[in-house]
Amino acid sequence: MITLSSDFGSPYPAAMKGVVLQRTDARLVDVSHAFPRQDVRAAAFWLREILPYFPPATHLVVVDPGVGTDRAAVAIEAGEHVLVGPDNGVLLPAARVLAGDAEAATSDADDAIRVHEISYENAASSTFHGRDVFAPTAAEIHESWAADGTVPDAVDGVGDVTPTDEFVDLDLPEPAIEGDAVRGEVLVVDDFGNAITNVPGYVLEGLDEVHVDGRAVPAVETFAEVPEGQWLATVGSHGNVELDVNRGRGDEAFGVEAGDSVRIEL
Amino acid sequence: MITLSSDFGSPYPAAMKGVVLQRTDARLVDVSHAFPRQDVRAAAFWLREILPYFPPATHLVVVDPGVGTDRAAVAIEAGEHVLVGPDNGVLLPAARVLAGDAEAATSDADDAIRVHEISYENAASSTFHGRDVFAPTAAEIHESWAADGTVPDAVDGVGDVTPTDEFVDLDLPEPAIEGDAVRGEVLVVDDFGNAITNVPGYVLEGLDEVHVDGRAVPAVETFAEVPEGQWLATVGSHGNVELDVNRGRGDEAFGVEAGDSVRIEL
Amino acid sequence: MITLSSDFGSPYPAAMKGVVLQRTDARLVDVSHAFPRQDVRAAAFWLREILPYFPPATHLVVVDPGVGTDRAAVAIEAGEHVLVGPDNGVLLPAARVLAGDAEAATSDADDAIRVHEISYENAASSTFHGRDVFAPTAAEIHESWAADGTVPDAVDGVGDVTPTDEFVDLDLPEPAIEGDAVRGEVLVVDDFGNAITNVPGYVLEGLDEVHVDGRAVPAVETFAEVPEGQWLATVGSHGNVELDVNRGRGDEAFGVEAGDSVRIEL
Repeated sequence: MITLSSDFGSPYPAAMKGVVLQRTDARLVDVSHAFPRQDVRAAAFWLREILPYFPPATHLVVVDPGVGTDRAAVAIEAGEHVLVGPDNGVLLPAARVLAGDAEAATSDADDAIRVHEISYENAASSTFHGRDVFAPTAAEIHESWAADGTVPDAVDGVGDVTPTDEFVDLDLPEPAIEGDAVRGEVLVVDDFGNAITNVPGYVLEGLDEVHVDGRAVPAVETFAEVPEGQWLATVGSHGNVELDVNRGRGDEAFGVEAGDSVRIEL
Repeated sequence: MITLSSDFGSPYPAAMKGVVLQRTDARLVDVSHAFPRQDVRAAAFWLREILPYFPPATHLVVVDPGVGTDRAAVAIEAGEHVLVGPDNGVLLPAARVLAGDAEAATSDADDAIRVHEISYENAASSTFHGRDVFAPTAAEIHESWAADGTVPDAVDGVGDVTPTDEFVDLDLPEPAIEGDAVRGEVLVVDDFGNAITNVPGYVLEGLDEVHVDGRAVPAVETFAEVPEGQWLATVGSHGNVELDVNRGRGDEAFGVEAGDSVRIEL
Repeated sequence: MITLSSDFGSPYPAAMKGVVLQRTDARLVDVSHAFPRQDVRAAAFWLREILPYFPPATHLVVVDPGVGTDRAAVAIEAGEHVLVGPDNGVLLPAARVLAGDAEAATSDADDAIRVHEISYENAASSTFHGRDVFAPTAAEIHESWAADGTVPDAVDGVGDVTPTDEFVDLDLPEPAIEGDAVRGEVLVVDDFGNAITNVPGYVLEGLDEVHVDGRAVPAVETFAEVPEGQWLATVGSHGNVELDVNRGRGDEAFGVEAGDSVRIEL
């Protein structure tokens, strides 16, 4: 099974699928091609939340603002999974969870993952690495991995695959305790307008109300506990605090977007 | 085969697919993840129109404004199909058609469908039942149904599955005859801006023109019969009267949205 | 393998998939259902760029402003591929490339493709040929083609399939040399806002700057060579000149949309 993730919209992902299907009969599953454009951190968050629900698979990821520069390409072995994508950190948070390091999921201990650099001196284009570098690499790694659990030494038409200890890392930001408050950050806004923060959900335990940037907000378990149009703080399916509006857009009501700081008084 | 339908946009459906694929190798087919948000009736309409074109399948449906409340979860046997989703009526119009009750498709006679309640006391989250309740249930029901045509007694990690006669029903609204006019309702607006009503198409038979809310409108078989930008009434692929504009948006031209009443003088 | 392409958005493509899966177990791959609405030329461009990356397949294409009129339906044998869709030219540029005529890809020599007309006198609806004509036809042609490399004489529930020399053609427009300038045309704007022209990329070779409609613009290999927000001309993954903005929308910066003429001074 190969999953596909990108910020390409449509129809570019189809070219990647064609290339993959030239080299393997694997099942293809789209994770998303609507990730926020060129937002490596948002994609890293979503992949960390979603890929662990999959059975063993090869995960092809292309959110790649550095395409055309000399940024490297990597494949990462993580438990029973392999991830393939640009060397910009987008794969790391998910890789650490897939490798079983779910509690910490930080860069402190990386015994569980193995990184390979993919040279791509034979690839056709400098502008569409999704199609010309990552798609053929994911297909060939999938075939090799499914056959005998190894990553190949080279990918035909792309280049060599070499183990490496050097790669670009990315840790999603940690919230900071400030007395009886938490200073966190909006990691991503989902399609519903829910502003998903990096603040762990347990801080809301036992609370009926918090103050978000000074404004009193009900802390609830479900949207249905407040009237339509009412803002709220709740714990999303990912386990983090979300700032939402019942049947409305939390990002607009709270005036926040991805990357903004938020202070939650408990 | 398992079909998936929701109002989740992207990327949440991918988590559901991962969970399903942990439990079955079935083919997955997306019906839509762009149903109008939390609009149970619109989803019920689309499912009734589209699912009957599929071969025997398990249909996973999550349009669920009551998630997090104590609304029940149900599975419905309907002919050679099974539907799985929230107990809010969204499955019923499609279930009745799939069970062969295509003519009436109302709640008057339900000998042909069998409803099961899915308890979910073992499910992980209260906010993402699509992933934690409906996805594993659809996967296990699919496996059981494909093997021997039965619905299982319980779903691992979710809860018991019990036959029931009590469920939330939903009949799509019926149009009313008013002399030589029909009072109907816009059920849904599609991506083209076509306003699809509940008025059966046969009322347009033999007519060149109707009056919609007092305005004279050509009644045509195809858009191409009127100039670009011209409004029209026609019979859509679903068999109902649509209010459209040739290469434009019918909803804007007629000033209607889902739920609005329309009066068509014949 | 059957690919699906349309301008239908959601959820209409699902009805096509259901119909296809009633008749075949083939793998289904979406190319796009977000092609610019009723823009035959844009779809023809995208199909020509993307379909050649696929292994041998049947390609179901529905971009069909003439649905409901008496326009014909066609199937085209092209190399190891078959294309099925409306007789409006949308299939031709891709067909010529798939048949191996990649260099010219014009209508001058068509020995390599074989066109069949699909009569559809038995089809159910006059408004949804995607579901009632093209989907069953693609499924049955796929089955026949995969079995013995032939196109069937008739499609059950649709009508006869007959070889023909008459079909609607479509050549994508060619750019014109005007002294040391090229007059081209914007073929399509992609989801990123990149304005893709019909001007071949080699005209930028060795140049640092061009003038587009009189405005000086850097000619670069990658977006990263210019600051964020800066306009640029580059060669896209399709080999043509694109007018772009680094992390912005080229169509808005250059004030162009599909069909507009552009003059590039070299």
